[in-house]
Amino acid sequence: MRKQISDNVIQRLPKYYRYLQELIDKNVTRVSSKTISEALHLTASQVRQDLSLFGEFGQQGYGYDTEHLKKCIRDILGLNEKHSAIIVGGGRIGQALANYKGFSSENVEIKAVFDIETAHIKVADGISVLKYSEIENHLAKNKIDIAIISVQKEIAEDVSKKIISCGIKSIWNFAPTDLYFPGDVVCENINMSESLMRLIYRSKKN
Amino acid sequence: MRKQISDNVIQRLPKYYRYLQELIDKNVTRVSSKTISEALHLTASQVRQDLSLFGEFGQQGYGYDTEHLKKCIRDILGLNEKHSAIIVGGGRIGQALANYKGFSSENVEIKAVFDIETAHIKVADGISVLKYSEIENHLAKNKIDIAIISVQKEIAEDVSKKIISCGIKSIWNFAPTDLYFPGDVVCENINMSESLMRLIYRSKKN
Repeated sequence: MRKQISDNVIQRLPKYYRYLQELIDKNVTRVSSKTISEALHLTASQVRQDLSLFGEFGQQGYGYDTEHLKKCIRDILGLNEKHSAIIVGGGRIGQALANYKGFSSENVEIKAVFDIETAHIKVADGISVLKYSEIENHLAKNKIDIAIISVQKEIAEDVSKKIISCGIKSIWNFAPTDLYFPGDVVCENINMSESLMRLIYRSKKN
Repeated sequence: MRKQISDNVIQRLPKYYRYLQELIDKNVTRVSSKTISEALHLTASQVRQDLSLFGEFGQQGYGYDTEHLKKCIRDILGLNEKHSAIIVGGGRIGQALANYKGFSSENVEIKAVFDIETAHIKVADGISVLKYSEIENHLAKNKIDIAIISVQKEIAEDVSKKIISCGIKSIWNFAPTDLYFPGDVVCENINMSESLMRLIYRSKKN
């Protein structure tokens, strides 16, 4: 059974994971909560509290074993399991995502890109380019865990609902509108436009 | 003089703005705090409290005038002013950003893309493709407000520091590592990898 972990901790776990990977890449074998907290702009007590949720990883005066802690967080996040994904919307963002190599470290494999028009879509070897009209058939025949939505905002919700009706429970949304779904469907929204607006606002304060 | 607005409100302002634009696109002229709150998964009292920061926009029993409220939020966010930007890193994400048309609604114009190698970079008309070695010279001669960083994570911090030393104060970071800068430099991190990890974790809970 998995422990309940608060949303705030979930926000931070990937940051710990990424930072630990950076340390391991530099052959750093142990790290203190103080060092982690400074690197990630958190307080040391918050780091200790977060990491204590998963058992006693740290030792007084020694710190955390970077490999062991990374492995524990990887287990908790579920990154050891393979996940298959499709991309719906083969525009520039969809194609960039289809060709992005970084997802392999999260064990996510892009299987296919769907669009109404497919002639213009260029993706890496091993990824199918398929007509949107084939999506229900494809989802019925293949085990797909994640749908990545990179369509226009006007159709993002309808497209997602159709995919959810085919059994998909995880939506990663790049359309410039936030999506919310009831029940057991989970959705992460990447809203670039909102981030840009915040940057502009914060720039003006200077 | 601008009012101090909390970070939490700043997180939500772009959501209000985007939702109001959606309503206006559908010819909706007024909206209640209840409707806004349901659409954005906030509480109605939070919406009223947030929007009251900018004066009395709402009227009891009438709601908010969508055009007027949108204009006020647009003013507050600073979206009426033009902003020029460069992209550093002409890989797939950099090219997707260079060719993305959505930034015009935030009045952001991409002026140039920089990379060590430039031959492979395809961007829309009007955007220059330049060698990274020319970046200091370019920033000295052109008024650039925002630098969009889409380089590998290993060099993201050094590249950003160099650009900041040339006078840039706003960094929009797409490299898969969070960046933080002291002083009056503002930075928004888009960390896709972290979002994907959260999605995978939350999927597993089902």
